[in-house]
Amino acid sequence: MAAVSCAVAFRGARGLCGRAARPAAAAAGLRGHRSGRTYAAVSAESLPTFGFLLDIDGVLVRGHRVIPAALEAFHRLLNPQGQLRVPVVFVTNAGNVLQHRKAQELSALLGCKARRQAEVEPDQVILSHSPLKLFAQYHDKRMLVSGQGPVVENARALGFRNVVTVEELRMAFPVLDMVDLERRPTATPLLRSDFPAIEGVLLLGEPVRWETSLQLIVDVLLSNGNPGTGLATAPYPHLPVLASNMDLLWMAEAKMPRFGHGTFLLCLEAIYQKLTGKELHYEALMGKPSLLTYRYAEQLIRQQAERRGWTAPIRRLYAVGDNPMSDVYGANLFHQYLQMAERGVQAERQGAGGPQKQWPSATRSCVSILVCTGVHRPGEPGSREQPFHGHRDFGFSPALLQASHVVSDVHAAVRLAFREEGWPW
Amino acid sequence: MAAVSCAVAFRGARGLCGRAARPAAAAAGLRGHRSGRTYAAVSAESLPTFGFLLDIDGVLVRGHRVIPAALEAFHRLLNPQGQLRVPVVFVTNAGNVLQHRKAQELSALLGCKARRQAEVEPDQVILSHSPLKLFAQYHDKRMLVSGQGPVVENARALGFRNVVTVEELRMAFPVLDMVDLERRPTATPLLRSDFPAIEGVLLLGEPVRWETSLQLIVDVLLSNGNPGTGLATAPYPHLPVLASNMDLLWMAEAKMPRFGHGTFLLCLEAIYQKLTGKELHYEALMGKPSLLTYRYAEQLIRQQAERRGWTAPIRRLYAVGDNPMSDVYGANLFHQYLQMAERGVQAERQGAGGPQKQWPSATRSCVSILVCTGVHRPGEPGSREQPFHGHRDFGFSPALLQASHVVSDVHAAVRLAFREEGWPW
Repeated sequence: MAAVSCAVAFRGARGLCGRAARPAAAAAGLRGHRSGRTYAAVSAESLPTFGFLLDIDGVLVRGHRVIPAALEAFHRLLNPQGQLRVPVVFVTNAGNVLQHRKAQELSALLGCKARRQAEVEPDQVILSHSPLKLFAQYHDKRMLVSGQGPVVENARALGFRNVVTVEELRMAFPVLDMVDLERRPTATPLLRSDFPAIEGVLLLGEPVRWETSLQLIVDVLLSNGNPGTGLATAPYPHLPVLASNMDLLWMAEAKMPRFGHGTFLLCLEAIYQKLTGKELHYEALMGKPSLLTYRYAEQLIRQQAERRGWTAPIRRLYAVGDNPMSDVYGANLFHQYLQMAERGVQAERQGAGGPQKQWPSATRSCVSILVCTGVHRPGEPGSREQPFHGHRDFGFSPALLQASHVVSDVHAAVRLAFREEGWPW
Repeated sequence: MAAVSCAVAFRGARGLCGRAARPAAAAAGLRGHRSGRTYAAVSAESLPTFGFLLDIDGVLVRGHRVIPAALEAFHRLLNPQGQLRVPVVFVTNAGNVLQHRKAQELSALLGCKARRQAEVEPDQVILSHSPLKLFAQYHDKRMLVSGQGPVVENARALGFRNVVTVEELRMAFPVLDMVDLERRPTATPLLRSDFPAIEGVLLLGEPVRWETSLQLIVDVLLSNGNPGTGLATAPYPHLPVLASNMDLLWMAEAKMPRFGHGTFLLCLEAIYQKLTGKELHYEALMGKPSLLTYRYAEQLIRQQAERRGWTAPIRRLYAVGDNPMSDVYGANLFHQYLQMAERGVQAERQGAGGPQKQWPSATRSCVSILVCTGVHRPGEPGSREQPFHGHRDFGFSPALLQASHVVSDVHAAVRLAFREEGWPW
């Protein structure tokens, strides 16, 4: 956050000094004024006990255009100094981008500079692969990494120190990639024997030239990491596969949804199953609706509140999204988990994989709000009539597809949350 | 065939003049001599009653290298004038190539010029899509064509007069193809309303950039041919889809098999099923193991024999291939069909789609010969233990996967056929 207001600096300072009591200004019940409109009583809003998990595509932007309701929503979410009045994290299933770049991109789309609004910070952005930071046991393995854009930088930023790209593998073994007639080798290259075996596969986001990535990933799995050789029998279980972003579809400018990384994973699963007769297994599968992602988001919300000096515990999260299968399903799954955790029940490992131990949290509920500016279209037949667009590993629980609230857009979603929390609008 | 020998001209002339009796030379029992080796008695071989259906990849060539056994086999198949002694067609599931180009390529690989061997003629080559010539009812429809290489020329050569490529569709609707971050449009283009609706989809062979073709084909199917618009409910049945080459895998230089068009179709089927909950339907599916392809091949064998003046009916076909799922399965399916036809039973429409009416044929059997120079590896577990690599629409009949004969290579296959036919080796 670039500009720091006195009030926030004060709160921040107290926050950093430890568990501060309710700030004096808040206790005094001062009222602020912004854009000529009286806004929330400081007494009611100065210590937020709720936060937002905002999806990006289909909620704040579509393609490269901001959705007008997003600007209105931020108008409400900011104090006169252009800073957030409640903790907000942006939870996207995008993966083919660096965290700080996504934050810059979002700042530009929201017109932060022009609107004198604090820029979006990198640690407010949760990409689909962000929770991979937790998988330290793979950080020193030699991982084949698939995706596009800054895949190597992304993998390194997540802690992976020994990565090989699909392109590097293709160059090492040119006879593997045979679909594109124009890229086929014109001579038979010598078989390399000095290429160290691959030990795992990291699927960060949808690549380009799916045929190449699908072929080489399958080659690595069937050959136990030595794609130059042929094995009589493919090993099973195969090498560990870590994947992020299972969104089948996402909403851009086109009238119909576009393929996401989930569609790529679907192809990979179908091919692996057809070739081996066995199911592709994910060691971990993250990004919404995975619990891993929501737990990570909740952690960042808490840290953000602490940095701002908001010492009141964050009790409730509002997860705003456009995709029933990732945003609503994930938020409801997390809510279910929180409820079980509160009851002292160890939540079941539901599809998320990875470390699942309990952690101390004040959060008691997660409210799912579905908006109609993206994938979901109002008036579409109910989930029971629609085919299941979620990932294979997330068993279809129709109840989890039902949003707590369905509203027109993110502005309406923020209004709803404010009303629920007793914050004036 | 470039060079025409006296003997063949004589036979041909008689053949063209009508149903000639057994040629005089044959009746005289003359013996020829070739490359210093005594070859078959003319009396036994001058009027072949059998022919060969030779697969190309994995049988004659691997990648861009000829398999030595193929040269030996042709040494046996040719007469001293370098012309075939029996009718031979090359039945490949390749599709991203023009027929005459494939013939030239094969001639070059077999070293026809250097070996004074008649060049391979275009009408000896059956590509996976060749039977599409029979689907006249679609030739005037506006078809989206997918594949690579000379797709438009290929479609036109098959009779399709109104085709649109995936690339043309992408240019007309730039917001559809969103996977490649670098190819996404930088501004929102105006929606086109002057693009005539697409009426069918023609899948000739594996394209490049599968993500683009998969997305645009699915868009066309879900929008009933108007991919710029969004429909609340996707039509079903969807627009007709004609596809050729369902090979899941094929053998090139790499030690493990490579993805074929069947893998692309598998992805398309999986995506369509996931999105709509319904099965993708093929109006026609051709290329081995489809009956359509074998009937077409048998027709070309007959025409070839007629052109050569071989008036004895072709009773038996030897189908030599490396892929149990396409070559063996298809040959056995065709054999089953021939047997049923002989018994006067209308063969069931088994997966092939399209016109299936009876035709007059002297062919009574088709012998499947599996070679070990390609996809099939000797010593691999039997078909019962292996996953089913055939196409979804060709129900798994394990018995049809059992080759009549398994031999080391195409040379051994030709020897076997000669022995079966009583031709001296």
